[in-house]
Amino acid sequence: MIIGVMVTTTRHHVQTAGQGDLHDLTDLVARVVSESGLSSGIATASVIGSTAAMTTIECEPGAVADLNHLLERLAPREGRYAHHERWGDDNGSSHVRAALLGPSVTLPFEQRQLLIGTWQQIVLLECDTGPRRRPFVVQLVGE
Amino acid sequence: MIIGVMVTTTRHHVQTAGQGDLHDLTDLVARVVSESGLSSGIATASVIGSTAAMTTIECEPGAVADLNHLLERLAPREGRYAHHERWGDDNGSSHVRAALLGPSVTLPFEQRQLLIGTWQQIVLLECDTGPRRRPFVVQLVGE
Amino acid sequence: MIIGVMVTTTRHHVQTAGQGDLHDLTDLVARVVSESGLSSGIATASVIGSTAAMTTIECEPGAVADLNHLLERLAPREGRYAHHERWGDDNGSSHVRAALLGPSVTLPFEQRQLLIGTWQQIVLLECDTGPRRRPFVVQLVGE
Repeated sequence: MIIGVMVTTTRHHVQTAGQGDLHDLTDLVARVVSESGLSSGIATASVIGSTAAMTTIECEPGAVADLNHLLERLAPREGRYAHHERWGDDNGSSHVRAALLGPSVTLPFEQRQLLIGTWQQIVLLECDTGPRRRPFVVQLVGE
Repeated sequence: MIIGVMVTTTRHHVQTAGQGDLHDLTDLVARVVSESGLSSGIATASVIGSTAAMTTIECEPGAVADLNHLLERLAPREGRYAHHERWGDDNGSSHVRAALLGPSVTLPFEQRQLLIGTWQQIVLLECDTGPRRRPFVVQLVGE
Repeated sequence: MIIGVMVTTTRHHVQTAGQGDLHDLTDLVARVVSESGLSSGIATASVIGSTAAMTTIECEPGAVADLNHLLERLAPREGRYAHHERWGDDNGSSHVRAALLGPSVTLPFEQRQLLIGTWQQIVLLECDTGPRRRPFVVQLVGE
């Protein structure tokens, strides 16, 4: 038997409810890991699109509200944005929030388990101003 | 034929025009992927140096200006920084902007294509106060 | 001899002194790389827990103080947080700071050396309000 490193790539999506809607992807990513047959490696969860973001947070409503409150102060939804003036668009706040947080999270797994904290969840944060069908990718590189 | 996972590492640089200058690296990273012979895996674009950053954004002048406007509010170029007092330097704003955004972006590819959105670009943001010859690395781990 | 890609996963911890305490992990990660027997690949440093973060910064006291000053303005320790009201907790600022910075840093190495700048360090930033025994993982995927 040759044991080597392999890549698995799976595509998913969530239906979001608009700006600030946060989805806990931890169980899904953990299931992708446990079903992959891979023991250890890295897992990357990455959102497709420039107006949503990935990070980790304790996924309880208070902390999520606090994060959204901070993002609203940093990049108010009703603020003035050059992106609006150029494109007649309304999601300037979405673009800067997403750029600040980043599009992907990369975390290790070992013995088929994600190495994250008990109260640390992998989350997709919708930053756009309306509901979106939001595609994302979970990719493992491991052995 | 044994098909296995391989690593490719390529080095590049851009000449930047100073703080806020943003370079779209998407075509370059996509070319590295397509020329690598690898079908699927992860691509990491990483900047060398502590006063520049990588993220993704819709690379149009309005959204870029909005991001820079936010960063100027968060860490004003002409603000007071302990880094200045210690080193007689002028780039305290650069260090905190870069630390906030982070030095690298990791994204999956499959069938020789980056899995990112149509209006989602991989960008290098110069945070330092003057022009720089800014080296960066594109590394693929894939099969 | 078959040379292939391998995964190495090592676990570590630091004892932190509370919010704003920053630990330079660069030498440790570099040693993990040099002792791994791997020549090139990616290194992921990832913190376990939702109230600490990883990034890169020039690890000198001035720049570190500037980063903490910014985070205190963004998410004041003594601010009002929904997380406090729900849980009687005092670390709402910790959760949003950590979510903003992110839990991991992924960087390339080649010829057994991390490809980072001379004044660019991999750091773990304690965001929680008290001292913590903070576990983290260094994982390499390389050949």
